[in-house]
Amino acid sequence: MARKRVTLQDLADALGISKFSVSRALSGKPGVGEGTRRRVEDAAREMGYPLVTEQAQNRGQIWFLRQEIDRVSTELWSNILLGAEQEAEAYGFTVIPKQAHSLFDGPIDEAVVGLILAVPYPEELSGIASQSNLPVVCSGYAAPLEHIDQVSGTDWEAGITIARYLATLGHRKFAFVHGDARLLGRAERFRGLCDGAKEFDGTVDDLVFDEQAGLRKPLLDYMDAGGKPSALFCAHDGIAVSVISELALLGIRVPEDVSVVGFNDFISASQVAPRLTTIRTPHVEWGAAMTRCIVDRVSNPRFRAVPPLRINLVPELIIRESTGPASLLPWQRK
Amino acid sequence: MARKRVTLQDLADALGISKFSVSRALSGKPGVGEGTRRRVEDAAREMGYPLVTEQAQNRGQIWFLRQEIDRVSTELWSNILLGAEQEAEAYGFTVIPKQAHSLFDGPIDEAVVGLILAVPYPEELSGIASQSNLPVVCSGYAAPLEHIDQVSGTDWEAGITIARYLATLGHRKFAFVHGDARLLGRAERFRGLCDGAKEFDGTVDDLVFDEQAGLRKPLLDYMDAGGKPSALFCAHDGIAVSVISELALLGIRVPEDVSVVGFNDFISASQVAPRLTTIRTPHVEWGAAMTRCIVDRVSNPRFRAVPPLRINLVPELIIRESTGPASLLPWQRK
Repeated sequence: MARKRVTLQDLADALGISKFSVSRALSGKPGVGEGTRRRVEDAAREMGYPLVTEQAQNRGQIWFLRQEIDRVSTELWSNILLGAEQEAEAYGFTVIPKQAHSLFDGPIDEAVVGLILAVPYPEELSGIASQSNLPVVCSGYAAPLEHIDQVSGTDWEAGITIARYLATLGHRKFAFVHGDARLLGRAERFRGLCDGAKEFDGTVDDLVFDEQAGLRKPLLDYMDAGGKPSALFCAHDGIAVSVISELALLGIRVPEDVSVVGFNDFISASQVAPRLTTIRTPHVEWGAAMTRCIVDRVSNPRFRAVPPLRINLVPELIIRESTGPASLLPWQRK
Repeated sequence: MARKRVTLQDLADALGISKFSVSRALSGKPGVGEGTRRRVEDAAREMGYPLVTEQAQNRGQIWFLRQEIDRVSTELWSNILLGAEQEAEAYGFTVIPKQAHSLFDGPIDEAVVGLILAVPYPEELSGIASQSNLPVVCSGYAAPLEHIDQVSGTDWEAGITIARYLATLGHRKFAFVHGDARLLGRAERFRGLCDGAKEFDGTVDDLVFDEQAGLRKPLLDYMDAGGKPSALFCAHDGIAVSVISELALLGIRVPEDVSVVGFNDFISASQVAPRLTTIRTPHVEWGAAMTRCIVDRVSNPRFRAVPPLRINLVPELIIRESTGPASLLPWQRK
């Protein structure tokens, strides 16, 4: 588990004073005595709350560039933005969400000190972003050897973890259920699942479908063609919700007949019944890490010569109700 | 249906030139001839694309204030932010997402021209926000007669529309399924549902549950106590996903035994099987409307004396697979 971030409230509680006083003390504003200010600053240093001197405020804008809404991943992007924004605030920067076309609209405003590419396919923007000569960090996967920073999850590790967890429950026949095959993160999770399955002489089917057209027909076609895995790993929780509810309509029980695993731990993972076993990637921390890439390159002289970084955040396996021991007779349609 | 917003691409297509040229022409930047610039401006005026003169750029910041993440409504807030941001950009303003505590951190930066309260309970912030003497607009419901603008959906209209639609399918026994009863929007939808049910001598049960603890037990208790509505209206799509999947596990068929309606048209409404009949509120337009409240009060002298506004956006009923004719024998558990 990640260590919990220290908040203003934590400082207020520790010192027995109001959050308002803590805030004013740390921002160098009037309204608190010098003694209190020093006590607050000492506590902040000790507890690891980032100290920002007044001069350091308004150190510049970080553009958070995004494209058309990717509805399937709204929660992901929303949490990433929140993390980017909170981390920037702590260091005296301002994150501004911007439509990606802003990059093409001529010279970038002088107040901008760095660019976050918050899009599913960063290669569509990274060329023009790099021409700005500002620090650039992307979410997901940069091109091989591309000179921008990158923050992502450990997708391969997630895949192999799921295979190994399911193997301990007796599963050997897996399927990976997904739509958009262009996304490298999904491909990496698939590769991890296959590598994990191999350790136990297991097999992995590739069940692809069109996310717009729906899962029912591809699922039935797959079953009619003899597909009988005992466990399904879905590329994201939304697909897992479709899988679980379609299976219920077919009279196939989860997890008694088939186990289902999602990815992301979106809110729907806790809303569907049975509640979904899934992988929780630290999305808020992901956004914070992207901001830190920019802040380090802007503020820390030692970072000027650091080569491009690929930072991958380790997720957690969240076990809920949708996984169980492998059935001897999976896929018995009622 | 709302008229689709005119984009740079629409202008480019209409004129047969590149989006890049259109953008440079409209932003007053070099790289396009005077003739092209005039053609682009004429087309923009004719097609309703907002014209921003170069002097009008950077007209100020609009703070988009938010609190702890409301995970159930992430899609709502994300779309509202997108709409606020796009509309602000079109008028030369910048939307900056900010944690609500910024309001308590002392004087607000001079660059800020207006405040958007993007929180479920605006009364927690509206007092301090109003002290800034900046234009303030909230999402949801302001206090009665409170002197701030408000943008919301037509919640009562949504409720009565659903009752009337379901009544045409023969339904007379309804239940409203919800968690947090403090939210006025939900209460208004419930009131609309009751008013609509009354028109057909129908009845409405109130099925309340703790969204953290889950729906299974309250649903079983309700059924055991004799609750047998033929149609369930859920306070949001997430609850409807829980309802549909719990019913499937109980062997109760949707819509053959019971019809289910959601609210919001989140992505999960299209992922669950059967796909969910729901109410689609125009969330992106909602954010745009909040920005226009600020922009009008800042830029338009005629708006200075306009009393506070309550703007309610009309949603659409989206009919999918989860509603059908009223069953004569609802709730037959298998």
